[in-house]
Amino acid sequence: MAGKNVFYAQSGGVTAVINASACGVIEAARKNRKFGKVLAGRNGIIGALREELVDTSLETKQAIRGLRYTPSGAFGSCRYKLQSALEAPAEYERLIAVFKAHDIGYFFYNGGGDSQDTANKVAAYSQAVGYPITCIGIPKTVDNDLPYTDCCPGFGSVAKYVAVSTREAGLDVASMAESSTKVFVLEVMGRHAGWIAAAAGLAKDHPQAPPHIILFPEIAFDKQVFLDKVKATVKKVGFCVIVASEGAQYADGSFVADAGLKDAFGHTQLGGVAPSLVDMIKLEHGFKCHWSVADYLQRAARHIASATDVAQAYAVGEAAVEFAAAGKNAVMPIIVRGKGKKYTWSIGEVALSKVANVEKKMPRGYITRDGFGITPRGRDYLAPLIAGEDYPPYKDGLPDYVRMTNQLVQRKLPRFAVE
Amino acid sequence: MAGKNVFYAQSGGVTAVINASACGVIEAARKNRKFGKVLAGRNGIIGALREELVDTSLETKQAIRGLRYTPSGAFGSCRYKLQSALEAPAEYERLIAVFKAHDIGYFFYNGGGDSQDTANKVAAYSQAVGYPITCIGIPKTVDNDLPYTDCCPGFGSVAKYVAVSTREAGLDVASMAESSTKVFVLEVMGRHAGWIAAAAGLAKDHPQAPPHIILFPEIAFDKQVFLDKVKATVKKVGFCVIVASEGAQYADGSFVADAGLKDAFGHTQLGGVAPSLVDMIKLEHGFKCHWSVADYLQRAARHIASATDVAQAYAVGEAAVEFAAAGKNAVMPIIVRGKGKKYTWSIGEVALSKVANVEKKMPRGYITRDGFGITPRGRDYLAPLIAGEDYPPYKDGLPDYVRMTNQLVQRKLPRFAVE
Repeated sequence: MAGKNVFYAQSGGVTAVINASACGVIEAARKNRKFGKVLAGRNGIIGALREELVDTSLETKQAIRGLRYTPSGAFGSCRYKLQSALEAPAEYERLIAVFKAHDIGYFFYNGGGDSQDTANKVAAYSQAVGYPITCIGIPKTVDNDLPYTDCCPGFGSVAKYVAVSTREAGLDVASMAESSTKVFVLEVMGRHAGWIAAAAGLAKDHPQAPPHIILFPEIAFDKQVFLDKVKATVKKVGFCVIVASEGAQYADGSFVADAGLKDAFGHTQLGGVAPSLVDMIKLEHGFKCHWSVADYLQRAARHIASATDVAQAYAVGEAAVEFAAAGKNAVMPIIVRGKGKKYTWSIGEVALSKVANVEKKMPRGYITRDGFGITPRGRDYLAPLIAGEDYPPYKDGLPDYVRMTNQLVQRKLPRFAVE
Repeated sequence: MAGKNVFYAQSGGVTAVINASACGVIEAARKNRKFGKVLAGRNGIIGALREELVDTSLETKQAIRGLRYTPSGAFGSCRYKLQSALEAPAEYERLIAVFKAHDIGYFFYNGGGDSQDTANKVAAYSQAVGYPITCIGIPKTVDNDLPYTDCCPGFGSVAKYVAVSTREAGLDVASMAESSTKVFVLEVMGRHAGWIAAAAGLAKDHPQAPPHIILFPEIAFDKQVFLDKVKATVKKVGFCVIVASEGAQYADGSFVADAGLKDAFGHTQLGGVAPSLVDMIKLEHGFKCHWSVADYLQRAARHIASATDVAQAYAVGEAAVEFAAAGKNAVMPIIVRGKGKKYTWSIGEVALSKVANVEKKMPRGYITRDGFGITPRGRDYLAPLIAGEDYPPYKDGLPDYVRMTNQLVQRKLPRFAVE
């Protein structure tokens, strides 16, 4: 007889490899008779509250295998944070009611710090109300800001995308600079931490290679120092490639992106850090500039995913099932880096209570003293995370990503309103 | 005894595969004793005027092979248009002087319409002054706007990048739309023609799949019709993915990108079409939006190049040498599409005089009647051009692109000032 069902949900901003974690969960659970069906939340935790549960047992083996190479959230994700059970008891009651109604004994929550906090609260609440749910967190975030784990699944692939794009765009600017564009700015994600921007530094394969300037949220932006560095770089190298975190900010905490642009109606516009920097450079130096904003392209770019990242994303999904099978609760699998010179990794674990709402900052020692680049230590940390290619299959020139049929299980409860 | 030397130059905006054409030229010329050395212009035609000639015979066979998978212009390109010989005789005299001094009998010019015009003028001028140079054009442009050739080397790869990125970002938005971003705008190149934006349409694999709206420069932008379509799409599909040509424009020819934004000093800013559209959508509908500007990333993205495009880029380079060997002059190799249902292509030729300064527009029949998508005819034209993957080699997680040593041949002439 199969055991209790599993509820799996994706949470927050999606990544190129979050579905690889889903693949790990579903494939491992299908193999283990301790588990019943894996029910996935349609649009994450909202799906549990609304009793919209995708029955993944109706998907073929091939479709589930395809999750490994399909980016973004196959069952839908959401930005929805449960309050504490004290503030919002109705939501917790509802969750438990849905879990009971569908014989769910396991909750695997695939997300960042907020989600781990939620999983931890659900574990405690379910215990308190006498319907204990085994809650396992599965780490995911392009921001690489979860503590304890050496890195976060999702980060390695966005890092690879940014490093590859920087190298490629850098070659473009280099070949045009004599008579045309002299400055190129690439804006990347990272509102609070510069991990993603730092990855661009991996593209630098000789002292004059791009990127020449990286702007981190951790380093206060000094306009004049920046403009001087741009000028000096163009003079020395002939051109200048800049990679800027969207969260680049002045010493007072105001964002560089908020350049004070106003539209025809006088409304202030958040223009993006790239165009803001370009405006400054044009005004001061008159250089011809180009700029790019990678936005979702960077975190959805499964076509250039890191093989290391894909393997780790799969492994943490698989480990969640193994942890649950072993009777563990309120924990999260983490990536542990081996001590040797050659990069190795294994799966470890940490209590959810320790992870919840703690942000891992980038060590200052990863950033060069001038604040514009990464140090050898930073490079040593980052380089293995982008190693290896893991191409999806193609059909007619395009990645042949899978699409779930996403059939919902029959409702058993009255409706519940979720804003 | 080896024949006369070849002068090869890259011109205008570079592409992911222009070096594949260079590879075709150099490999073919090395095999044929009719040709001496291939000398490449450092920064394109400027290199000829300045007598800065890269001696490609000093590069290893492996390095030259590596050009096939290395994006952008390995010898440097330029935006520099020669005037007519009547307006600027000094430049033509100089070119011929440099060609004479370095025993150059062949000029292969790798560029767009302007460059083919220049190559044609050089052919005529050299004839007139009694030092006839064999001039062969080699087509290149991401804009796909050269006439006679079925497509332009460089376009297939940018098309593939845009189609892949649209599919990937579309999956991202789809998975977040329930509680977060509802609209995503991707801005792509194409100031005068919508070929690149059209390629995004290849990502649409079912009627509700992204992209939902493509904005072409060929179709007058009607703000209200656009905003209504966005709203209807969000209502029907749950989200809306828009791919916009940078050249999207109103009926009066003014660019959508010129949204009338002003900076802190009151200067008007050209903000990019993506942020301009997002401003409109937010103001009218209040949807949460994200946007991306691909810019150089799209045309430098050799990591996701079209195998068809790479093969064609190589073939037109090789054909230029074969044409010259066969005694042809003032012609350009073109891609000829086979008549059958299955896509085939071969190399044809056209006189430079016919190509020069003629722009190929996208047929109206490739665009749907509502102006927001591509028709089956458009799809039939575009689909084969992105077919096949041709991955570069990787080292440490990054494409291992080659770098030329770019050693210049000894000068023989006095300096010549080029602005």
